[in-house]
Amino acid sequence: MTTEQLYEQIKQKKSFLCIGLDVDMDKIPEHLLETKDPIFEFNKAIIDATHDLCVSYKPNTAFYEAYGIKGWKSLEKTIRYINEKYPDIFTIADAKRGDIGNTSSMYAKAFFEDLAFDAVTVAPYMGKDSVEPFLAFSDKHTILLALTSNEGAYDFQILKVEGRELYKQVIETSTEWTNSHNLMYVVGATKAEYLTEIRKIIPNSFLLVPGVGAQGGSLEEVCKYGMNRHVGLLINSSRGIIYASKNMDFAQAARREALQLQLQMQQLLSENQ
Amino acid sequence: MTTEQLYEQIKQKKSFLCIGLDVDMDKIPEHLLETKDPIFEFNKAIIDATHDLCVSYKPNTAFYEAYGIKGWKSLEKTIRYINEKYPDIFTIADAKRGDIGNTSSMYAKAFFEDLAFDAVTVAPYMGKDSVEPFLAFSDKHTILLALTSNEGAYDFQILKVEGRELYKQVIETSTEWTNSHNLMYVVGATKAEYLTEIRKIIPNSFLLVPGVGAQGGSLEEVCKYGMNRHVGLLINSSRGIIYASKNMDFAQAARREALQLQLQMQQLLSENQ
Repeated sequence: MTTEQLYEQIKQKKSFLCIGLDVDMDKIPEHLLETKDPIFEFNKAIIDATHDLCVSYKPNTAFYEAYGIKGWKSLEKTIRYINEKYPDIFTIADAKRGDIGNTSSMYAKAFFEDLAFDAVTVAPYMGKDSVEPFLAFSDKHTILLALTSNEGAYDFQILKVEGRELYKQVIETSTEWTNSHNLMYVVGATKAEYLTEIRKIIPNSFLLVPGVGAQGGSLEEVCKYGMNRHVGLLINSSRGIIYASKNMDFAQAARREALQLQLQMQQLLSENQ
Repeated sequence: MTTEQLYEQIKQKKSFLCIGLDVDMDKIPEHLLETKDPIFEFNKAIIDATHDLCVSYKPNTAFYEAYGIKGWKSLEKTIRYINEKYPDIFTIADAKRGDIGNTSSMYAKAFFEDLAFDAVTVAPYMGKDSVEPFLAFSDKHTILLALTSNEGAYDFQILKVEGRELYKQVIETSTEWTNSHNLMYVVGATKAEYLTEIRKIIPNSFLLVPGVGAQGGSLEEVCKYGMNRHVGLLINSSRGIIYASKNMDFAQAARREALQLQLQMQQLLSENQ
């Protein structure tokens, strides 16, 4: 999917919501545990109930790897289900990978070819040759960690390197890499005040913004400082939506939460676009 | 496995060799492609032929993920095979993971519990709460990327933050994290000249050193600047060993390459210990 197609989806659905499919067996409704593949059944129900309210789904691979091969099967079934039934959805593998060149190529193959995700999150620490193998795929997107939503972001990301914060250095440097037009960036909603500075470096790029809801970030603040003329934002919510209820009505409850966010987004779009 | 047990293994085997099991289907002998699980059959033969010459095996997860569920099955079979048949071997999942706290816990569970690796490599960019969930496991080891062997290491890792290089800042900061005694560090052999400085910060930690061989690092240089009184080094070689031959004799050829490195290590140990 191209960024233009993503923008079209956002306009059509009046939503720039990304739903994080971070499925923890301890948190899903008990009646699903009796099914053959509880994680997939949970995802399927959530997806069917919310697909018209969001433009993206983002499974975090950690939650699938934690269940070994069974978990990978659930991940594979989930992405195939989305790609077949809702091909207009932008799919993100939140994998935070990155390795030396030939190894990053293997990861890119895994997520872009084998699993056919539209995007994958990548860590920047190993630099250019760890990211470019992902960028080499046309119409696929590499979402680079820039300024994350967690407390540990303050350990290194905001330290000054050569006069400016590391995360700015990461963003700036990455714009020079081959096929950098395939880059998007992770910027935590808990750091909304940094968005003005970030937009000076990358006015046109899409930002994937976690941290709204459970982690305390504000949707309004993110839009105020981060929205550009093509919206340029994907706001992720995971726990706040998918665990809205632990009962039989979990999918409807997820829909209610997603709808609330979508309506806020619709309002913000009408004010800002 | 404790670091003391690892040191005992090094003394017994007169080797601090780690063999990287980075298995690419395009590079393994053709006759294996007819077997049910070519990657596992390849690994099994390599392991049986080299286990007395090395103290560690390190599958890089990218090479397994690239083959989807089939690849994960091969990885699972490989780690189970090592743990059952050669329990004294120190096993490393070269996964370069790292995420916000509750998500890193899922990765730690995946690699330490489900797959029962002794160690996992972790990226530092997201800071303390992305690494501590791994450190929480007793007698398991978290190998933090510090200064990697690739060209891209120069993009960010050696930039000066607050007066010293980022990789030094990463190492120094990490020593203050809870259970930091479970930390080891990745330092590329291609950057051997940096080891003196690194040893000033972490004199006692084990270092995992990739980049000897194919990438051009020197074993002698690494030992000169990096060895401590408990050796403190695991030198990784992947392609140079496992792809020594593409014929029926591939396992014996791998053994010959591993033996050559082991003999050099035996010599270096007798000179330095």
